[in-house]
Amino acid sequence: MATARVIITLKKTIMDAQGQTVEKALHNLGYTGVSNLRIGKYVEMTVEGRDQERVEEMCRKLLANPIIEDFRIELEE
Amino acid sequence: MATARVIITLKKTIMDAQGQTVEKALHNLGYTGVSNLRIGKYVEMTVEGRDQERVEEMCRKLLANPIIEDFRIELEE
Repeated sequence: MATARVIITLKKTIMDAQGQTVEKALHNLGYTGVSNLRIGKYVEMTVEGRDQERVEEMCRKLLANPIIEDFRIELEE
Repeated sequence: MATARVIITLKKTIMDAQGQTVEKALHNLGYTGVSNLRIGKYVEMTVEGRDQERVEEMCRKLLANPIIEDFRIELEE
């Protein structure tokens, strides 16, 4: 059994409207030093065996949209 | 300037309906070895100075809902 942690983010070239909105809200609250805020998804799951390729396949097939999103995987026993 | 990465997850005691749905979808695709899947949010931003407390404050005030969510912060110069 291993724990897989996947972080899915919009590609740098894709505009992140949600992130821009949250960044503006932080500025309005007085946190003016915040910039380049981007929002993504986080998926944590238990998988059988430490199989990076299998998790990558799950990302490409279901968890992420490879056209507009990048993903990175951490696997830990 | 520092980069802050925040991972926001539902507290363990809160049911994650979205996570259960994605887990079932993975099972239907043949990935039957997946369990305990939980979905969260990921926020990446540039902040002025490496100030953990200030980022924690942002999480409590806006980014997370401390009643139902936990968050963890990584700060990197």
